[in-house]
Amino acid sequence: MAVGQTDFPIMRTIKGVKLGAAKAGIKQTQREDVLLIEMAEGGSCAAVFTQNAFCAAPVQIAKAHLPQEPRWILVNSGNANAGTGKQGLQDAFGCCLSLASEVDGIAQQVLPFSTGVIGEPLPVAKLVAALPEVVADLDENHWDKAARAIMTTDTFPKGATLMIEIGGQPVYISGISKGAGMIQPNMATMLGFIATDACIEQALLQQCLSEAAELSFNRITVDGDTSTNDGCVVFASGKSEAPEILPDSEDYRVFSAALLVVCKRLAELIIRDGEGATKLIRIVVEQARDDAEAVQVAKTIAHSPLVKTAFFASDPNWGRILAAVGRAGVENMALDKIEIYLGTVCIVENGGRALAYTEQDGQRVMRQAEITITVRLGRGAASQEVLTCDFSYDYVRINAEYRS
Amino acid sequence: MAVGQTDFPIMRTIKGVKLGAAKAGIKQTQREDVLLIEMAEGGSCAAVFTQNAFCAAPVQIAKAHLPQEPRWILVNSGNANAGTGKQGLQDAFGCCLSLASEVDGIAQQVLPFSTGVIGEPLPVAKLVAALPEVVADLDENHWDKAARAIMTTDTFPKGATLMIEIGGQPVYISGISKGAGMIQPNMATMLGFIATDACIEQALLQQCLSEAAELSFNRITVDGDTSTNDGCVVFASGKSEAPEILPDSEDYRVFSAALLVVCKRLAELIIRDGEGATKLIRIVVEQARDDAEAVQVAKTIAHSPLVKTAFFASDPNWGRILAAVGRAGVENMALDKIEIYLGTVCIVENGGRALAYTEQDGQRVMRQAEITITVRLGRGAASQEVLTCDFSYDYVRINAEYRS
Repeated sequence: MAVGQTDFPIMRTIKGVKLGAAKAGIKQTQREDVLLIEMAEGGSCAAVFTQNAFCAAPVQIAKAHLPQEPRWILVNSGNANAGTGKQGLQDAFGCCLSLASEVDGIAQQVLPFSTGVIGEPLPVAKLVAALPEVVADLDENHWDKAARAIMTTDTFPKGATLMIEIGGQPVYISGISKGAGMIQPNMATMLGFIATDACIEQALLQQCLSEAAELSFNRITVDGDTSTNDGCVVFASGKSEAPEILPDSEDYRVFSAALLVVCKRLAELIIRDGEGATKLIRIVVEQARDDAEAVQVAKTIAHSPLVKTAFFASDPNWGRILAAVGRAGVENMALDKIEIYLGTVCIVENGGRALAYTEQDGQRVMRQAEITITVRLGRGAASQEVLTCDFSYDYVRINAEYRS
Repeated sequence: MAVGQTDFPIMRTIKGVKLGAAKAGIKQTQREDVLLIEMAEGGSCAAVFTQNAFCAAPVQIAKAHLPQEPRWILVNSGNANAGTGKQGLQDAFGCCLSLASEVDGIAQQVLPFSTGVIGEPLPVAKLVAALPEVVADLDENHWDKAARAIMTTDTFPKGATLMIEIGGQPVYISGISKGAGMIQPNMATMLGFIATDACIEQALLQQCLSEAAELSFNRITVDGDTSTNDGCVVFASGKSEAPEILPDSEDYRVFSAALLVVCKRLAELIIRDGEGATKLIRIVVEQARDDAEAVQVAKTIAHSPLVKTAFFASDPNWGRILAAVGRAGVENMALDKIEIYLGTVCIVENGGRALAYTEQDGQRVMRQAEITITVRLGRGAASQEVLTCDFSYDYVRINAEYRS
């Protein structure tokens, strides 16, 4: 069940970027499960990958190939090719080789990604058999199809698109993502693929993506479990009429702000489609000493099963939020300086329940589908935001009953 | 629903320790909700308290009173007196004062504890009115009654009792605890009260308890949420015929091992009564570089909602365990050195699924009510164990539906 408005947008095409999908029948035969993105020569490509120590085989290969001026992104859903040892690495590279021969490129220019069950061997033959079809399908207009091909049990395709102006010329950014909710057992993996026709050098694009990912994909959590397969790639084709984006320029600030907007939207869509989610919860921590402290407190609240079940029940159970702040591991926190707001309703101040607070006020906020919690620590000027969803019966059902 | 055998044991009485309970009607009038433990003069008393930065008022008072040679422990269930600001501190100390006048003692010798809803004012008048009854009820044999009086929605009273020999003389240790499962909203709080007739000096007893608590109460988790009210007290009356326990002696080793056994049993009973628990899961991490690393990996597995829902479903979903190990924040972990066992069945080795592993073997283990996961990191010689329970529909129900 998705929270709020999640229609797939009318995507701007990106010159120099084509997308194709095909049915390889990796896990099911009903829908497309292989995606190919072709990126024109001469563009620049940046990526961020999972922090999980046990990167899946395709992630390891993609990391190695990133500096080789990648031209293709090859993604399959239905199998994660993770926990598969040396065979998994051979399989992932084998797919790159097969694609390279199909498109007359070189294997090192392919970034492979996989999402699906951990620990099963990748059905390489099925995937390779689908490559001619996926290549034939390449088209600038296939963003919607692409977003569907990378879904596992996401309930809707996820896309974001934006136009900005650089040097008086239009520049477009379009991106797709898939869910992080472990939507089926072992079906982890948040994936994001973003393209722009901006002209920007690789190192600068990487800096831009790393910063944007930190403030978007790294600020969402469904269950605190980091996948072995997460990855997000941005490709800049340089095909717009706009001038090159240079470091420390106003153009850079405009472009990086726009990339952040796209990443935040893609990240938010993942939370709106979180497993069993009935509510979108925005946790804002203000007056922290630094960003790390703010994120630490926000994530502790976001990971608390007690907070999440209370939100599911629309129960303004602020003691649970307070207890989570208290156990967040922040040194020398003073309870009497803490303020906690549900929406605009102050629930905690001066070390206890706010005098003006009433249960009715709290419940009025809690009944909404999208709720902001604001925690003011009274320690400094840093503030950060984390998005999460509630914790429902469906979360347990989805994660417990998959194999039964 | 409790996991396994949880009958209340026939408790050894402890010379110098009396327990009394009464109905104060703090939250419900059906059963005892106030407990008083009287400790004979001349004994020693040690305690450990919650690490939550927002200690409840009674915990703050108990910490301050601990060095004053405490003679009484006063506990109420039904109200946590947490998040209650200055009024909460006055209320907690007021109860100590009232008790002191009732028993002709001094308020600073009372350790107060509370467990229940956060943020509601403590109904001091009700509690004080019950003091004469609770004092009149004091008796060496009231361990069972005491264990029931501190229950919130625990489904059974929790006790452990042990006899050891020191200097050829019998020494007894008896203790009670209550659940940590946030068994009703805001009904957090793990409490433990242990008494022995051993003769042991305060600093040594404190060392003994701190070590035992670290390896027992600090090694269990239901949902990763640390209460504002946790506490565990041990009192040594010195009334046995045994010689005093001295530092670095064989007697000390015997006594501290026995105290650890009692603490571990009390901790395990809390997990067996975890909210909605249908399974007891023992997570053993071996071959870690040090204890901290082993605990870190074990707790990451224990807190993973994905691992916990898989156990609820009896699904040998080892990819989730592997992913949790990978995100535990341990530097330079090598996947090809990891071994994971479900019971005695090896599921992961050499970077992937064990060759001999079959789904049937995994499911045979997963169907059991008590399951051990062993993770070998291949990095060193340290090993640690953490207990947790599974994550069921009832967890969500208990925590979501309390107020509806």
